[in-house]
Amino acid sequence: MTPSLAIGYLAAIMGTVCWIPQAVQVWRTRDTRSLSLMANLMFLVTVILWLIYGVMILDVPLIVANVVSTTAMITIVAAKLKFK
Amino acid sequence: MTPSLAIGYLAAIMGTVCWIPQAVQVWRTRDTRSLSLMANLMFLVTVILWLIYGVMILDVPLIVANVVSTTAMITIVAAKLKFK
Repeated sequence: MTPSLAIGYLAAIMGTVCWIPQAVQVWRTRDTRSLSLMANLMFLVTVILWLIYGVMILDVPLIVANVVSTTAMITIVAAKLKFK
Repeated sequence: MTPSLAIGYLAAIMGTVCWIPQAVQVWRTRDTRSLSLMANLMFLVTVILWLIYGVMILDVPLIVANVVSTTAMITIVAAKLKFK
């Protein structure tokens, strides 16, 4: 594996798991006041678009990563809408 | 442009600008309590890694997108560390 490919994979993995602690925190504390609804909604749309793109080009890593991200982001946006 | 490419570009653009409203909100309200430091730090590292990857493979769209994302994420993480 080339150094650039290793960095690309590391970025992809980190970008996939990084929203899990945010999802856990909002449901544990029920506090979402400082989360921007606009930012989180836009990012939810972003990961759904990446998922659709992954399905269209049949790219398995892109699909797997964006199923995880979409799940985390739905959890965060749901908390934001529920605990205002 | 193919439909999949159009969706890929839309995802890239949306994923680049989406954190700007969050950055504006935390500095305007000085409230960062519900932001997960872990999640935002990991995402900052993610966009820095994508930026390094973009520089290594000389991909201009990747560099431009991740300069914007890195700036937004530094702004958010700085607010989180300053306004505890």
